[in-house]
Amino acid sequence: MMKLFSAGVSLALLPAIVCADPLPSWEGESETQIIDFVQSVTDPKSEDYVIPSDRIAVFDNDGTLWGEQPVYFQLIYAVDQVAKMAESDPSILTSDALKAAAEGDYEALMATGKEGLIEVLKITHSGMTVESFQASVAEWLASATHPKTDLPYNKMTYQPMVELLRYLRDEGFKTYIVSGGGIHFMRVFTQEAYGIPTEQVIGTYTETEYHVTDGVPQIVKAPAIGFVDDKEGKPINIERIIGKRPIIAGGNSDGDFAMLEWSTAGEGPRLGILVHHTDAEREWAYDREGHVGVLNRGLDEAAERGWVLVDMANDWSRIFTGSK
Amino acid sequence: MMKLFSAGVSLALLPAIVCADPLPSWEGESETQIIDFVQSVTDPKSEDYVIPSDRIAVFDNDGTLWGEQPVYFQLIYAVDQVAKMAESDPSILTSDALKAAAEGDYEALMATGKEGLIEVLKITHSGMTVESFQASVAEWLASATHPKTDLPYNKMTYQPMVELLRYLRDEGFKTYIVSGGGIHFMRVFTQEAYGIPTEQVIGTYTETEYHVTDGVPQIVKAPAIGFVDDKEGKPINIERIIGKRPIIAGGNSDGDFAMLEWSTAGEGPRLGILVHHTDAEREWAYDREGHVGVLNRGLDEAAERGWVLVDMANDWSRIFTGSK
Repeated sequence: MMKLFSAGVSLALLPAIVCADPLPSWEGESETQIIDFVQSVTDPKSEDYVIPSDRIAVFDNDGTLWGEQPVYFQLIYAVDQVAKMAESDPSILTSDALKAAAEGDYEALMATGKEGLIEVLKITHSGMTVESFQASVAEWLASATHPKTDLPYNKMTYQPMVELLRYLRDEGFKTYIVSGGGIHFMRVFTQEAYGIPTEQVIGTYTETEYHVTDGVPQIVKAPAIGFVDDKEGKPINIERIIGKRPIIAGGNSDGDFAMLEWSTAGEGPRLGILVHHTDAEREWAYDREGHVGVLNRGLDEAAERGWVLVDMANDWSRIFTGSK
Repeated sequence: MMKLFSAGVSLALLPAIVCADPLPSWEGESETQIIDFVQSVTDPKSEDYVIPSDRIAVFDNDGTLWGEQPVYFQLIYAVDQVAKMAESDPSILTSDALKAAAEGDYEALMATGKEGLIEVLKITHSGMTVESFQASVAEWLASATHPKTDLPYNKMTYQPMVELLRYLRDEGFKTYIVSGGGIHFMRVFTQEAYGIPTEQVIGTYTETEYHVTDGVPQIVKAPAIGFVDDKEGKPINIERIIGKRPIIAGGNSDGDFAMLEWSTAGEGPRLGILVHHTDAEREWAYDREGHVGVLNRGLDEAAERGWVLVDMANDWSRIFTGSK
């Protein structure tokens, strides 16, 4: 509709629209594979044509649309937040995990294991309304910067992926995030960073409660995890919320495998995309080992499944939106 | 966008578009209140103007967008389905509830209580892929007819509400269903009946499981209830899935009260709509008592809360889309 309208008001611009490179920060085979696919499903004369309402594209967030090193950015928010909370009330530091977080000591925090991390997440992600949680995240995004790049975290989105999202929407796709990250956290920045509205952000969530106090209804974040949007949880959540099988799915780790597997197993043309972190200089190089973004099965099976394996070092001329 | 495009291709049509009654089956005060509200939030010069991305409208389904008497239509599907399943395998009739269902004896079924109903729902709503469940619902919709009206169930949608949904979309709203009914059941007919795509259908759901058999991934409906989208569950689910507070909410029972309460308590202009079943002749007359669509608190508080109380007998010149 956007294109039709543009054409309606100014036909003179049409050749420019058609000829411009829709993915200026992409290079090589990955770019060609993606553009060929999109053209084949959007050309009404193509036998692979897909009607606009079925053009669903889903993308993981951490490591796919923005960085995820040295740890998930949402964890950095939580750790920073514990320090901030402890400033006004040191009595909250009732455990080794919380003390480590308050000191920004990630090594000591990791040493407390999964339970320690859950403690840090619970104290920073529950017991407040969704609005006040999101105000806190917005404040953090406006001031915090990444230890390696010195960029605000919401400028560490991948420029090539931002271009891909925009290109897909221009071609009639509905673009979704399907992430292990929290919905309330992500929704603070997804519209501005990616052009993705809150209702197209699927992710992990805490349980929430509906309270009416003095006639004012509020939705409050509770400590219990409601749904973990990772691995098999991704196709389950997509089916539950979108109710259609995507024709494009993109990720970067084995946590995205089931999402790509299910999406690309549907009938008709399908595109799977795996972002491979190969650029130690401009970003980070990692795959088979580590505590985030582990990619084994995807790396082993991408070729036989026909998935596009994006080599960040060679296929992207630019990495972060925040740095040229 | 639709309007802009229409205007772009044929300005001559504009006066006709502007003058046509957008709600031809509505009459009286309800129609005026709705149109006044929509005009005030869509007129860029109005102080109540709302940007298109915040124009979220949510509607209950049973009793709001289509009929719900003598019992929820989804229960009729389940009962019919038990009979069908028993034809090929009578050994499934292991309880009084299932035997009653197979005989279409609703009185005997109701006498088995909540447990009996759950048994009937479980056997008909789990243990199969989502696709095969939906194929079965589609088959039922294509053949079953309502005992009183003799209409197919998907022709028992309310014509005035179908007009309202279309009018809202024409005015830049995103229209959602938020129903106690099942998502997989509703999604079979919502696009055709209401113009509402699967991703805008929120409701109750069973848990689902992701299975890969011989390399083929499938999503299978499990017996456990995952979420009951009723009462407080409605605002919780809306916040979780849409992530925005609707500016219009419509329902017909106290199961919708929290949804209307939360939606209309937001800042700025808000519209609550309650469909009041007052038409014993063309439909059914019921409110404060019964086993479906009980409306007490809504009826008591609609006026003070400024919600539109739709008097079906007087405010709707037509009821079902399937009957003139």
